[in-house]
Amino acid sequence: MGKGRVEAFSDGVFAIAITLLILIIEPPSGKGSLAHGLVRLWPTYLAYAASFLTIGIIWVNHHAVFHQIGKVDRPLLFLNVLFLMVVAFIPFPTHVVAEFARSEDERRAAALFYGGTLTLMAILFGLLWLYASRQLLRPDADPREVTGITRSFLPGTPSYVAATLLALVSPIASLFAIGALALFYVASISLRGRAR
Amino acid sequence: MGKGRVEAFSDGVFAIAITLLILIIEPPSGKGSLAHGLVRLWPTYLAYAASFLTIGIIWVNHHAVFHQIGKVDRPLLFLNVLFLMVVAFIPFPTHVVAEFARSEDERRAAALFYGGTLTLMAILFGLLWLYASRQLLRPDADPREVTGITRSFLPGTPSYVAATLLALVSPIASLFAIGALALFYVASISLRGRAR
Amino acid sequence: MGKGRVEAFSDGVFAIAITLLILIIEPPSGKGSLAHGLVRLWPTYLAYAASFLTIGIIWVNHHAVFHQIGKVDRPLLFLNVLFLMVVAFIPFPTHVVAEFARSEDERRAAALFYGGTLTLMAILFGLLWLYASRQLLRPDADPREVTGITRSFLPGTPSYVAATLLALVSPIASLFAIGALALFYVASISLRGRAR
Amino acid sequence: MGKGRVEAFSDGVFAIAITLLILIIEPPSGKGSLAHGLVRLWPTYLAYAASFLTIGIIWVNHHAVFHQIGKVDRPLLFLNVLFLMVVAFIPFPTHVVAEFARSEDERRAAALFYGGTLTLMAILFGLLWLYASRQLLRPDADPREVTGITRSFLPGTPSYVAATLLALVSPIASLFAIGALALFYVASISLRGRAR
Repeated sequence: MGKGRVEAFSDGVFAIAITLLILIIEPPSGKGSLAHGLVRLWPTYLAYAASFLTIGIIWVNHHAVFHQIGKVDRPLLFLNVLFLMVVAFIPFPTHVVAEFARSEDERRAAALFYGGTLTLMAILFGLLWLYASRQLLRPDADPREVTGITRSFLPGTPSYVAATLLALVSPIASLFAIGALALFYVASISLRGRAR
Repeated sequence: MGKGRVEAFSDGVFAIAITLLILIIEPPSGKGSLAHGLVRLWPTYLAYAASFLTIGIIWVNHHAVFHQIGKVDRPLLFLNVLFLMVVAFIPFPTHVVAEFARSEDERRAAALFYGGTLTLMAILFGLLWLYASRQLLRPDADPREVTGITRSFLPGTPSYVAATLLALVSPIASLFAIGALALFYVASISLRGRAR
Repeated sequence: MGKGRVEAFSDGVFAIAITLLILIIEPPSGKGSLAHGLVRLWPTYLAYAASFLTIGIIWVNHHAVFHQIGKVDRPLLFLNVLFLMVVAFIPFPTHVVAEFARSEDERRAAALFYGGTLTLMAILFGLLWLYASRQLLRPDADPREVTGITRSFLPGTPSYVAATLLALVSPIASLFAIGALALFYVASISLRGRAR
Repeated sequence: MGKGRVEAFSDGVFAIAITLLILIIEPPSGKGSLAHGLVRLWPTYLAYAASFLTIGIIWVNHHAVFHQIGKVDRPLLFLNVLFLMVVAFIPFPTHVVAEFARSEDERRAAALFYGGTLTLMAILFGLLWLYASRQLLRPDADPREVTGITRSFLPGTPSYVAATLLALVSPIASLFAIGALALFYVASISLRGRAR
C-alpha cells in the first residue's frame, strides 16, 4: 500500500468534507426580510469558518506527519480510516451547533457535541502520530522536526478537552474557545514563517 | 486507458461516496431535548460507521487488486463501472437503514435492502477479481499474493448473503452481523501486520 | 496550462457528478410499507443507472480524446468548461425524470428535459472533439484512432436528438431509448475487447 | 509543504464546489405544469452558470498564479485557505440569489450578498497574488507574464465592487453585470489564443 495513495485518499476526504460544510447552510425562509435573515445566520457562518479552518489545519498537519513517514502499514491504515471517519463526521456537529447556537436551552448540548467530536478527532490524530513516530519514521527523518511535531501536537487534545468542558459553564465561551483554537493554530502556522 | 487513471477515478468515487455518507444525518428536530435527540440517533451513527468502514475496506481491497493487474481492458472497465455504481449507491440504503432501524415493522425490509446492496457489491467485486486474475495479471505478479487475495475474497459474498438472510429471522442481528463483518475485515487487515 | 491538470480537473468533476447522483434518491416516506415504497422507486433506480452509465461513458471518451491531444489552448479550455457545466448539471434532470416518470401528465416534459440535457452534452462534446482534432492533435497521433474516434462520436448527437424527440410520441419509449443508448455504448466499449 | 499538494488540494475544492452548485436546484413542486415550472427556474439556471463560470475562471487563474510560484510558505498557505473558504462558500449566495431573484422586495439584498461574496473572493485572490508575486516567484519566472497577471488581476476587485454596488440602483442590472463579468473573463481567456 503506497504512502502516496493513502495521502491522496486522505486529501480527497479532507477536500470533500471541507467543501460539503456549505451544505449545512440553507437560505433563510419565511418571516422577516432576507437581509435580516442573512444577518441572523451569523452563528452558522462562524461554525462554517471554525470547521473549515479546523479541517484545513488538520490537513496541513496530516501532511506534516506523512512527510516524516517512510512507509504505511496496516495499523496505520486502520488508525487513518478511523481518523478520517471522524473528520468526515464534522459537518454534522457543525450543522447541529449552527442550528442550536441561538437556542438558550440547547446550545450547551450542541457545544458539547461539537467540542466532543473535535476532541475525538484530536485524540485519534495524536494516536496516529504516536504510532507513526515510533514505528514508521523514514530513515532520514529530521529528529528536530519529529520532536517539533510531537511538541506541537501534545497540547492539542487537552486544549480541545478544556474548550469542550468550558461548555458546562458557558456554551458561548466554549464555542469562542474552539474558534480561537483554530485561529491560534492558523496563526501559529502562518507566523512560523516560510518553512521549506 | 491507463491503469493509473482508472485507479484515480475509482479512488475519487470511493472518497466522495464515503464522505457523502454524512449527509444522511439530519439534526434532530421538534420534540424532546437536543441531547436526547442526539442520543436517539444511535442507529444512524452505527449505519454511518458500518458503511464508512465497508467502503474503506473495499477501497483497500480495490487497491490490492489493481496492484496485481498489469493492464486495463474494456471488460474490466465495464465491471469496474458497474461495481462503482453500486459503491456510489451505498449512501441510499445506509440512509434507509438509519431511518427505519427504530421501526419494528420496517427494520426487516430496511436490513434486507441494506444487506442486499452490500451483497451485490461483494458479487461484483468478486467478478472483477475473477476476471482480472485470469486475464490481466502483470507478468511479475506474486502467485502467493494472488492466491491470498482469492482466498480472502472467496468468503466475501457468502458472508454478506448470510448476514442479509439473517434479517428474515432477526433484522437487528443482521445489522450487527453486517457491522461485525466490516469490523472483522478491518481487524484482519490491521492484525496482518506491516505488509509491504 | 498543462494537459494533465485539465484532465485531473475534468476527472474530478466527472467523479463528483457521478457520485452526487445518489443524492436524488430520498427514502420513501409516509403511506404504505417500506418494501412497497422501495419497489415503487424503480424509475429512480433506472434514472440513476442511466445517468451513471452515461457519465461513466463520457468519462472514458473524454480520456480517449485527451489521449490524442498534444496540448491545451484557451478555446479548448473554454469548450471544456462549458461541457463540464452540462455534465455537472445532469443530476438535476435526472432528479426531475426520476420524480415525474410516474406522472402520466408530466413524464413527457421530464423526458424532453432529460434528453435535451444529454443532447446538449453530446453537442458540446462533439464540438470539443471537432476543434481538438483539427488544432491540437499531438504529432504522433494515430490517424486510424483519430478517424475511429470521429466515427464513433458522429452518431452521438443525432442519436440523442432522436431519443429525445421520441418523447413527443412516447415518453416511456424515450426514456428506454436513452437507457439503451447508454447500454449500447457500454456494450460497444466492452465488446471492442482489450484495447491498449 | 510541496507546491504540488497545495495545488491538488485547491483543485479538489474548486472541483467539488463547482459540482455541488447543482444541489441548489430542486425539481419544481406543486402548482402549474412541470414544463412551466422548469421554465420559471431560469434565474436559477443563470445563477448556476454564472457561479460555474466564475469558479472555473478562478481555477484557471489560480493555476496561472501557482505556475509562477517557486515554493509555498505558511502565509501563502494561510491566504490560500481563507481564499478557498470563500470559494467553497459560493454555493450558498448562489442559492440565495437563485431563490430570491424573482422576489421584487428581496432581490436587492440577494444581489448584494452574492456580489459581496464574489468581491471578497476577488480581494483575497488579489492579496494572494500580491504576496506571492513579491515573495515566492520562482527564479526563472517570466517578468512579462508576472506583469501580465498583475495587470489582468488589478481590475478584478473594482469590477466586482462596481457590479455589487450596481445592485443599489438595480439588482437585475447587478446580476447581469456579474454574469457579464464572468463571460468577459471567459471570452478574454478564450480570445487570447493558444497560450503554451
